[in-house]
Amino acid sequence: MTTTALPHSPARTQAPAGFRPSFPLRLDELHGSLSDPVLGSMTLLNEITGRYPDAVSFAAGRPYENFYDPAQLHACLERFTRHLEDELGRTPAQVRTALFQYGHTKGLLTQLLVRNLAVDEGITAEPDSIVVTTGCQEAMILLLRALRTDDRDVILAPAPTYVGFLGAARLMDMPVLPVREGSGGIDVDDLVTQVRGARAAGLRPRACYVVPDFANPSGLSMSLADRERLLEVAAAEDVLLIEDNPYSLFNAGAERLPTLKSLDRRRGVVYVGSFAKTVFPGARVGYVVADQPVAGVTSGDGPLLADQLAKLKSMLTLNTSTISQAVIGGKLLENACSMASATRREAEVYARNLQAVLDGLRRHFPDPAAGVSWNVPGGGMFAVVTLPFETDDAVLEYSAARFGVLWTPMRHFYAGSGGTHQIRLSFSVLTPEQIDLGLGRLAALVRDRTAR
Amino acid sequence: MTTTALPHSPARTQAPAGFRPSFPLRLDELHGSLSDPVLGSMTLLNEITGRYPDAVSFAAGRPYENFYDPAQLHACLERFTRHLEDELGRTPAQVRTALFQYGHTKGLLTQLLVRNLAVDEGITAEPDSIVVTTGCQEAMILLLRALRTDDRDVILAPAPTYVGFLGAARLMDMPVLPVREGSGGIDVDDLVTQVRGARAAGLRPRACYVVPDFANPSGLSMSLADRERLLEVAAAEDVLLIEDNPYSLFNAGAERLPTLKSLDRRRGVVYVGSFAKTVFPGARVGYVVADQPVAGVTSGDGPLLADQLAKLKSMLTLNTSTISQAVIGGKLLENACSMASATRREAEVYARNLQAVLDGLRRHFPDPAAGVSWNVPGGGMFAVVTLPFETDDAVLEYSAARFGVLWTPMRHFYAGSGGTHQIRLSFSVLTPEQIDLGLGRLAALVRDRTAR
Repeated sequence: MTTTALPHSPARTQAPAGFRPSFPLRLDELHGSLSDPVLGSMTLLNEITGRYPDAVSFAAGRPYENFYDPAQLHACLERFTRHLEDELGRTPAQVRTALFQYGHTKGLLTQLLVRNLAVDEGITAEPDSIVVTTGCQEAMILLLRALRTDDRDVILAPAPTYVGFLGAARLMDMPVLPVREGSGGIDVDDLVTQVRGARAAGLRPRACYVVPDFANPSGLSMSLADRERLLEVAAAEDVLLIEDNPYSLFNAGAERLPTLKSLDRRRGVVYVGSFAKTVFPGARVGYVVADQPVAGVTSGDGPLLADQLAKLKSMLTLNTSTISQAVIGGKLLENACSMASATRREAEVYARNLQAVLDGLRRHFPDPAAGVSWNVPGGGMFAVVTLPFETDDAVLEYSAARFGVLWTPMRHFYAGSGGTHQIRLSFSVLTPEQIDLGLGRLAALVRDRTAR
Repeated sequence: MTTTALPHSPARTQAPAGFRPSFPLRLDELHGSLSDPVLGSMTLLNEITGRYPDAVSFAAGRPYENFYDPAQLHACLERFTRHLEDELGRTPAQVRTALFQYGHTKGLLTQLLVRNLAVDEGITAEPDSIVVTTGCQEAMILLLRALRTDDRDVILAPAPTYVGFLGAARLMDMPVLPVREGSGGIDVDDLVTQVRGARAAGLRPRACYVVPDFANPSGLSMSLADRERLLEVAAAEDVLLIEDNPYSLFNAGAERLPTLKSLDRRRGVVYVGSFAKTVFPGARVGYVVADQPVAGVTSGDGPLLADQLAKLKSMLTLNTSTISQAVIGGKLLENACSMASATRREAEVYARNLQAVLDGLRRHFPDPAAGVSWNVPGGGMFAVVTLPFETDDAVLEYSAARFGVLWTPMRHFYAGSGGTHQIRLSFSVLTPEQIDLGLGRLAALVRDRTAR
């Protein structure tokens, strides 16, 4: 580097070849993710939704909010404070430190999460293998950051997949290889094909992301046999699995199937959980169970992948909001650490609404020859409808403006590679009456588009 | 890619050349930041500190905590809820949505921050130019991610610099070019040298990070003339400035100098703020003011850098904890949006402790020939002492074990390139008695090491 003296009156020197001034900033000189449709899609959909406040919206993937009560925040906060004082024997000064200071990177809730995972999911976890995160979104970011070393690294995920995962991968410069999805969730045969193909092409498949229960956006779930086969195949093909489980408690009364993590006997599954749907999203509390040993760690670090994720977190958010953790902790304590028990009322709402959607679809689209079909999820918050025309953002806009009904084009969950004639119906925040009204409007849209 | 059929009994196929199995995970196959001393240094220092709970610790960069009171959390939460209801006229359902649901990515506090910035810093900001972040750490991550497009991008920062900035840059794969620091903060001449040298080498200096007031770790502040010159030079050399301001309110009674952002007339400064030191760190609430226009944005996006940062945030943490924001919002409202007014008691503690450190150093190291010197910060939480021997982690361990005093080796803030004989003294959580005791122990260490 040269050591040019500063001129007394600053003036730009002869610019090197290829120099472009920084001002104004230009989008094409910011990180590539910012020009990627994946990051733009949520903004765009929110923007369209925002312009039609009176439309029936099957677009919002938000939890039901009518049971929320601000008084609950105070009650939960107090419950957790009492827990620190009475059950853990902390002094007032220690309670103050826990609630107000920089906290342990892994979080205040790891012990309560061990109990929660045992009670609700049959998962045996050690506190040290858990990192509490700023929503499950941060957990995905941490995993993607940890697993990417260079341009050869890739991650696998079913297509369609949760747009938040695609966006997180884009932020971390990690390409996502799509795996086919069948009617029972991820196509395990295609996973093998993709993994082997990627390795043959010199790539390193670092993990496969999967939502075995009521996936967003497809609503699909894996059978027990498929779960067992996926674990076998992942072991044989040497692929780490990342299991994301935001919806399994909303099973519409059906039998709940075991999570991959509870079936895992070789620490081949990283488990990501969230309180966004079970307590409330604004708290931004999620967590990751990463009990995989990491070879070659230096002294001072713990031996698990969770310890490496905590190191990354210490430079990303330092710790998860202590206040949010205290509120979620209070909710766990109020419910003997069972979110299944805490969310009974919400689960009933979602089950009722799922039934209303499936009944309504049958009623409003009685003719199988009309080219409208849909899947039949066993729970969750989402169903997918296939329509006899392309369902892009322009059609969504038309649907909102002319017929007063909003939905999500499935193509947004394929990163542009599929779902061209499909839409996602999210039914978590609606009443059965609104669902019926909205499906009637959807039927009117279909009549309009197919009459052309 | 090949499309190999799945064998009925899964078994690993012939591995391609260079294939290494994923299990167990290995540190050298995780992201490079995890093997970087920058990320390890905090763990290491915390680990040493943890083993000597009875030592006097000048190591912790934490705010004073004796004024914290759990009842305040409830009061602030209620104050913010009343604000939403009474002052903003929100309905109970809207209040519930604001507190519990996924929130606006830019946050609930942008209007209150506009008032806070005007009252405390003389900064004129528009709400749209602000993004509330999960601590200022997330703000730095967002900026670093936005500004990195490829391997040619670099960022400048004074050496020594805040380890959280170095770590954030490492996480985002952004190299940090060190700029010399003089007794008045960043050396503006050297900044010019580094920028021109980098450009001549084919690199793109995207911004320069600077803490003009009571920097961590050096405790140094820039004069008004240097601030004005830095702005001039940054304009002439076409370098964006990132101003981080966690400490300016702790000015030990001296006149406060204007922030770079308040002097900035060309939107050449991105301003990063934090409530970690003014309210409490556990909340993880910070923010960024990024009013720079971005050319080439597509429809739907806003026109400012803040809008691009919000897009990144929507895939990183979605929104900052609504509960944390409500508590910080309540604190702002309780204090007519002045943190200077809210932190008077803390500011007195830090001023008293700074005086105790400077008095104590003079008392315990009276002989100028002994090779012990220190800087004289005008405020903040940190001072730097130069010792007549190397101050590495082994000496820290020895200091803790033999003399019961902890401090931070300055080399950790240089990413290995300096500070070999310096230590940082952090005095924010101590009493004057502890400071005197600790400095006495430090003097004993110096006698021990120099007698060899």
